[in-house]
Amino acid sequence: MNTRFLDACNQRPTDAVPIWMMRQAGRYMSEYRALRKKYSILEMIKTPELAVEVTLQPANAFDIDAAIIFADILPPLEGMGLELTFEKGVGPVIHNPIRTPADIAALTQPDPRESLSFTLKAIALTRRELAGRIPLIGFSGAPFTLASYAIEGGSSRNYIIAKSLMYGEPQAWHALMEKLSILVGEYLFAQAEAGAQVLQLFDSWVGALSPADYREYVLPHSARAIARAKEAGVPVIHFGTNTGGMLPLIKEAGGDVIGVDWRIEMADARKILGADVAMQGNLDPVTLFAPSEVLKRRAAAIIDPMRGHPGFIFNLGHGLHKETSPEKVAELVDFVHKYSK
Amino acid sequence: MNTRFLDACNQRPTDAVPIWMMRQAGRYMSEYRALRKKYSILEMIKTPELAVEVTLQPANAFDIDAAIIFADILPPLEGMGLELTFEKGVGPVIHNPIRTPADIAALTQPDPRESLSFTLKAIALTRRELAGRIPLIGFSGAPFTLASYAIEGGSSRNYIIAKSLMYGEPQAWHALMEKLSILVGEYLFAQAEAGAQVLQLFDSWVGALSPADYREYVLPHSARAIARAKEAGVPVIHFGTNTGGMLPLIKEAGGDVIGVDWRIEMADARKILGADVAMQGNLDPVTLFAPSEVLKRRAAAIIDPMRGHPGFIFNLGHGLHKETSPEKVAELVDFVHKYSK
Repeated sequence: MNTRFLDACNQRPTDAVPIWMMRQAGRYMSEYRALRKKYSILEMIKTPELAVEVTLQPANAFDIDAAIIFADILPPLEGMGLELTFEKGVGPVIHNPIRTPADIAALTQPDPRESLSFTLKAIALTRRELAGRIPLIGFSGAPFTLASYAIEGGSSRNYIIAKSLMYGEPQAWHALMEKLSILVGEYLFAQAEAGAQVLQLFDSWVGALSPADYREYVLPHSARAIARAKEAGVPVIHFGTNTGGMLPLIKEAGGDVIGVDWRIEMADARKILGADVAMQGNLDPVTLFAPSEVLKRRAAAIIDPMRGHPGFIFNLGHGLHKETSPEKVAELVDFVHKYSK
Repeated sequence: MNTRFLDACNQRPTDAVPIWMMRQAGRYMSEYRALRKKYSILEMIKTPELAVEVTLQPANAFDIDAAIIFADILPPLEGMGLELTFEKGVGPVIHNPIRTPADIAALTQPDPRESLSFTLKAIALTRRELAGRIPLIGFSGAPFTLASYAIEGGSSRNYIIAKSLMYGEPQAWHALMEKLSILVGEYLFAQAEAGAQVLQLFDSWVGALSPADYREYVLPHSARAIARAKEAGVPVIHFGTNTGGMLPLIKEAGGDVIGVDWRIEMADARKILGADVAMQGNLDPVTLFAPSEVLKRRAAAIIDPMRGHPGFIFNLGHGLHKETSPEKVAELVDFVHKYSK
């Protein structure tokens, strides 16, 4: 039983720095591409046996210290009445995006035990398959990231539609964020019930906001979701990108572990966050395209300032890119373990 | 003669906070759209009389404290041998992107007085038209932003091609960045010679890098360009987005004024940068889509912590969006002046 990752989440000392990678199950692996030839992304997510298989692919291929359930941040929106598809070359599309207070009032408040039962079942099955070898992470998109997707209808460069609603219809915005935060909190709680040993909240897009907007329009809702998740009694990782200027607010919203991207030095992030919270990060995923010498140098520079601070999890600053070489992933995992021992 | 902007660049007290806006000449103005019906973007940039007209449009419409010459960051690449077009719905495209050390060795080192004479002429003409009413800003893209465009061939989400060359072929990368920094430095110097009273270096994409990568692969080259520009004896503004985690390095590279985006509070940025440099920023451009009450509240929260610090220029954290209402722009300009008086 490898407890490095759980120990680090709880700020207990570890024999080596634990490592896992966001989007560690995905298109860069030939095993994944082989399955994707037969099934769509949503089929893979919604068929528990397939989700288990994909979740285990990186756990079998690399010496990583945690598995993360194969799922996506957007299916929770389906249970609210939004129509989601994944379009080739475009990515996820919401076909009936939210644009008015009436749209928001019409959204249902689904019970994730029903609307997302496939992922809960996949978690229970994966725990059984892992048999305690490494811990399993459950996750959810955060209220702001989900709201942006639901309003914009897809990915966005500037978030003009989402922010216009946020500024212009604050009551409706807060009603939407409350619905989302209840869903996210319940979903995370249910994942822990189903067997997830750590929960990660992904606020991938929150870096589009100023700190003042985050405080006013987002923080209370992320805090509500995290507080509910915490009632399950497992550690929560709170991750966002482009959050270097608002780390104290991210910490205030909650989380036992704060995840940071590569746009800030870990030593600087630790100074801002203080020693009473664990940290996860923060290699630029594109560094995996660099020669080994550069990759190792950059990884070492992340590990060195964290020595003597229990509560550090090595990860990328964002998800693995599909063009990444699996050999480089293996090399990084082994280097982080050996170098930090 | 309105000297507020120049005074703030030089950290001298002003009667009110000066304001101008990045991309203040552009599609959100009906005057601009009327011209764009007749001419392409490159025609407008390369015909000095048209560039003058566009530059003056916002200066005539709003009570702004500076004009910025209408140009684009990419034409300097044309003089090096790269083929640039603007494609509808896509944006700028480089048709022969740089991919190998041989490509980099083949790039010429153009004299911007020849290859960019149209912009230099437009600057001289605009100065005459402005007749001292407000100062004129000249600008250039920074070496990293230009290199990324030249390598990727267009805009990029992940900069995998550019960073792979940077990591994998460091000698060729530094040779490219040296050529670009010489071009950028000479171009900025020549703009000051032609009449630009302040120069801004736009490193719009530099926030894609970790601080460690910025220090190793970019800083010396931006520093070289800024040092050459400074020989012209005018203030230099050094601007980037997503730079909250590397502001000390941006300052180290140079600039009398550091421009920051909205992802960090001005008070925090000032604490990091110190009092010996002027600052420019940092309203989220999407706040211009908010109701007046929210817009004014956010603008006030930027101005308040800068009171008593001479050397502050109000600006957006990035360029104006084309969907912005000109009425809101006028409202912001007037509010900043009145509120800061």
